[in-house]
Amino acid sequence: MPENTSNNKLHVIKIGGNVIDNSENLYHFLKSFTAIEGHKILVHGGGKVATQLSDTLGIESKLVDGRRITDIETLRVVTMVYGGLISKNITAQLQRFGTNAIGLTGADGNFIKAVKRPVKSIDYGFVGDITKDSVNAEDISKLMQAGFSPVFAAITHDGDGQLLNTNADTIASALAVALSDIYETTLIYCFERKGVLQDIDDEDSLIREIDPQRYEELKEQQIIHSGMLPKLDNAFKAISCGVKSVIIGHAEDLGNIGDSKPFGTRLSKKQ
Amino acid sequence: MPENTSNNKLHVIKIGGNVIDNSENLYHFLKSFTAIEGHKILVHGGGKVATQLSDTLGIESKLVDGRRITDIETLRVVTMVYGGLISKNITAQLQRFGTNAIGLTGADGNFIKAVKRPVKSIDYGFVGDITKDSVNAEDISKLMQAGFSPVFAAITHDGDGQLLNTNADTIASALAVALSDIYETTLIYCFERKGVLQDIDDEDSLIREIDPQRYEELKEQQIIHSGMLPKLDNAFKAISCGVKSVIIGHAEDLGNIGDSKPFGTRLSKKQ
Repeated sequence: MPENTSNNKLHVIKIGGNVIDNSENLYHFLKSFTAIEGHKILVHGGGKVATQLSDTLGIESKLVDGRRITDIETLRVVTMVYGGLISKNITAQLQRFGTNAIGLTGADGNFIKAVKRPVKSIDYGFVGDITKDSVNAEDISKLMQAGFSPVFAAITHDGDGQLLNTNADTIASALAVALSDIYETTLIYCFERKGVLQDIDDEDSLIREIDPQRYEELKEQQIIHSGMLPKLDNAFKAISCGVKSVIIGHAEDLGNIGDSKPFGTRLSKKQ
Repeated sequence: MPENTSNNKLHVIKIGGNVIDNSENLYHFLKSFTAIEGHKILVHGGGKVATQLSDTLGIESKLVDGRRITDIETLRVVTMVYGGLISKNITAQLQRFGTNAIGLTGADGNFIKAVKRPVKSIDYGFVGDITKDSVNAEDISKLMQAGFSPVFAAITHDGDGQLLNTNADTIASALAVALSDIYETTLIYCFERKGVLQDIDDEDSLIREIDPQRYEELKEQQIIHSGMLPKLDNAFKAISCGVKSVIIGHAEDLGNIGDSKPFGTRLSKKQ
């Protein structure tokens, strides 16, 4: 385990489609990403580009009970768009700004091995589920110690030659938890809002800090409900598994990290 | 520089479309690749898949004086197919066989920086030319020393955020030359024939070894001519720049390497 403090900090940052689909947002985000000190990992999906390519190729989006199915044609599109187009363009941009990025999937370096989701009532197709042994933290750490910043597309493999489409939020969380054995790890989810808001219609009502006790209070007061609940439940689960803190915020505010200016809502253990 | 002998050998192997386009050939090749001891690098293009995808998307192949032009749409296809689909499927297969592969472009790790081909009479579009400073041998070596086998797609970058389509043969040769400062390097070109043939219609007439003197004789006797000349000229140029030997052979024979069985034509300095 590295002793040096600055060498022991890791940020795992997940960006969504609202960053990827807008080149100005992406430019701004990648500059802020580059400015973060210490080790860092970027996790991304593919935004609207994958859907557009599927449409152009006449590949129908198959939904069962509202959940998307990854058939072999969809997996090809995902591999091309997430693993190729988005990954390599982000990497080239990061190199321009001075981040020594490497664009990866879970197959590369055998970094993230998943299990194809078992067929029960629904066959989700080539979708990977993360297990507690999925992340090869030691080898990812080797890569970072050699001076590289991993950029992960939301794709894993089964170790038997099969690529698998995998939820990007889940990958980010699994990476942060596994690497928190080695690094002091902060997990950041960039989404389309400034963070957890006291009043959902008022972006100025940002709640800066939430610990488990305050979380219970906010739930009781029904300030946090519906869509935010699973996000925050997962965040506190990651914290209970070793992640130092989880920040949920807007990508455009990432540059404020470490400053006194506000960046998102920080979730952490009771101080 | 590593002192250990087995740690000091490197094979750089380039495969063409005839391997990539046939899943049985690819399976066989990747097994043979895995069996090679020491450090190894794979270089690939994209075979027919890129052309097929371009056709489906209605992107016209633009040729000027018989040379293909990489416009922005073609670059997108190349990045998706070479950098995503082919790269990540090869990587997942290699992991299955036990090679700790990482699928890369020249943008990743800033490993290969190229110069956009200057516009003279023809504008080739987003095509990268390799210079003598293109290959970041030190960082590629770091990656290999950390236990990973690089798999390079035929894509580079200009260091200013732009990806560039780049000839795979040239990338393989540039990698081999640059890494021969650190490793005892063999460069292997897999193509659709067993090697250099005495009689082009007889696959049994393989010439096993050619040194520069024999090369002159074979040219005088017009046994080597037309298409093979630039290939062999480039091979001997790589050898004069430090590469130990260059082998030109059929991918299906790669398993014979190191055995007494024949694998291709070995070009090397005079013994």
